Amino acid sequence: MTRAAVLGAGSWGTAYAKVLADAGTEVTIWARRPEVALALATEHRNPFYLADVQLPAVAATDDHERALDGADIVVLAVPSQSLRGNLEHWRPALRRALDENDASLLSLAKGIETGTLLRMSQVITEVTGADPGSVAVLSGPNLAREIATGQPAATVIACSDEARAVALQQSCATGYFRPYTNVDVVGCEIGGACKNVIALACGIASGMGLGDNSVASLITRGLAEIIRLGVALGAEPVTLAGLAGVGDLVATCTSPLSRNRSFGHVLGAGGSMEAAQEATHGQVAEGVKSCGSVRALAAAHDVEMPLTDAVNLVCHEGLSVREAVGNLLGRRIKPE
Amino acid sequence: MTRAAVLGAGSWGTAYAKVLADAGTEVTIWARRPEVALALATEHRNPFYLADVQLPAVAATDDHERALDGADIVVLAVPSQSLRGNLEHWRPALRRALDENDASLLSLAKGIETGTLLRMSQVITEVTGADPGSVAVLSGPNLAREIATGQPAATVIACSDEARAVALQQSCATGYFRPYTNVDVVGCEIGGACKNVIALACGIASGMGLGDNSVASLITRGLAEIIRLGVALGAEPVTLAGLAGVGDLVATCTSPLSRNRSFGHVLGAGGSMEAAQEATHGQVAEGVKSCGSVRALAAAHDVEMPLTDAVNLVCHEGLSVREAVGNLLGRRIKPE
Repeated sequence: MTRAAVLGAGSWGTAYAKVLADAGTEVTIWARRPEVALALATEHRNPFYLADVQLPAVAATDDHERALDGADIVVLAVPSQSLRGNLEHWRPALRRALDENDASLLSLAKGIETGTLLRMSQVITEVTGADPGSVAVLSGPNLAREIATGQPAATVIACSDEARAVALQQSCATGYFRPYTNVDVVGCEIGGACKNVIALACGIASGMGLGDNSVASLITRGLAEIIRLGVALGAEPVTLAGLAGVGDLVATCTSPLSRNRSFGHVLGAGGSMEAAQEATHGQVAEGVKSCGSVRALAAAHDVEMPLTDAVNLVCHEGLSVREAVGNLLGRRIKPE
Repeated sequence: MTRAAVLGAGSWGTAYAKVLADAGTEVTIWARRPEVALALATEHRNPFYLADVQLPAVAATDDHERALDGADIVVLAVPSQSLRGNLEHWRPALRRALDENDASLLSLAKGIETGTLLRMSQVITEVTGADPGSVAVLSGPNLAREIATGQPAATVIACSDEARAVALQQSCATGYFRPYTNVDVVGCEIGGACKNVIALACGIASGMGLGDNSVASLITRGLAEIIRLGVALGAEPVTLAGLAGVGDLVATCTSPLSRNRSFGHVLGAGGSMEAAQEATHGQVAEGVKSCGSVRALAAAHDVEMPLTDAVNLVCHEGLSVREAVGNLLGRRIKPE
């Protein structure tokens, strides 16, 4: 019998707990706030995220030690920039799960850690001392709301230990959720870390009134720079042509449910960063935070990422959206 | 001075004539119907396509010999399945342009010829006897209406003769239209020929009420089968990861301006083929016509294209859309 602890009760953690439970896996969710844990445990409903979705029977707690007790799958579902702090706090209990249950650590977080420029799987192995073969990542075109309502979706579970990837695949496969396995952890992580920046660019373009040709071109040129970065870091290009690359990128760049696209749209229509934040429920879009670290990682590996550069200049250096688009369109015509 | 003949006054031919004129190229459009040629010549407006768009000063005629007289760029802008018949009729005048002006033949048509399973560039060399180095193809995320209204767009011009690709690039580069060159003619043609079938599948999914995760997954799995076919025919995978592959595919699969997507949407919502045809101005979507020949080409090269197969079964064998989606989602879980 497989027992999973889902650490984090945001919208994706909540939706993924539902997927696991629907796949027949025993699930305990850990929520930081006791009132969220209580609502999850008693009403099987998350009052703050996807509040209208009725969850199957899952256990819930605000005590991470209880959540991790006996778990052989540990799902890390906290924001990328707070992953390290949480892992440090959870370390003793995580070590027990690793040592006693040979647990797998599965990251749902997407991003590059500011300052260290580490990928999430690297942060996990560094803080917990876990063997890299025990750490997996999940990435794909997975808008949480659609999955929570049972819409069909596919995803990729990547782990350097293929047998572990297959076990994780079986723990979450349902009629509506199709996980594929892959051994290319770097490729999956780079796709997930970079896509939000390109989604901001697509939102900016659509907010400026540009059409579907422009958005499709931005997605394509964005994919090209993501592949360049991935290859420099050892990823397989074919991973980035797959669900964790193209798939996630297209969903995030074209869906009205995407927070990054919506945030960029406000900027493109002439709104300030504050107005964009207000329009997206007070949260700064992930791409705003990650464009700097993606850019720094690219610079450290001598990779050109003109779209990411432009988004960074707009979000952090005061470049106007018109100037940014002018710079991109004004580049010399050349071979593809 | 470059002189271009645009043979065909549908929406893409009309929009591309505008691009050429805006880039400083002298243009004559040939229209089959005299009333269209007259309106184009006198009012600089096409009464049947993009009727609200004011064109720059272009010459127009219903006499292909006059259009081709002195032309060193010949733009072939007729539907793929009628290209051969038109070329046979135009052959003497095309031979003069090839022999006297060293003309380039640039195909805007996208498709695989029914029966022969030839790509458009192959049909052109076969009928005209032109050297393959004189034949080029243009493909990318190029919804005609957006380009006609000056929205920024990028495209690929592919020709095995790189110098010729560069000359064609210069003939159409404007502030809003960015052509890139490529020598991979096969890759560009396969991307353009296959994308309409995948757009039908995306329309069917959205018509059934499936969300953006599903559409993004279909685009990704569609790309994978397009790359498989392209590679079997000698294309470079990187071309299909570019504007003529991913770019065109994303625009066609996500834009409400895409006729194939709209046609599929009606089918997915339970409408008949006739209802879908009525909803899209009486025309059968290109993907309905081409899914059979794409499938036959794949079979001839032992390439699996499960999405194309499913669309073919829905359009021509009476399979219900629910069964088709069930078949696709029900495939065994496996490595990506």
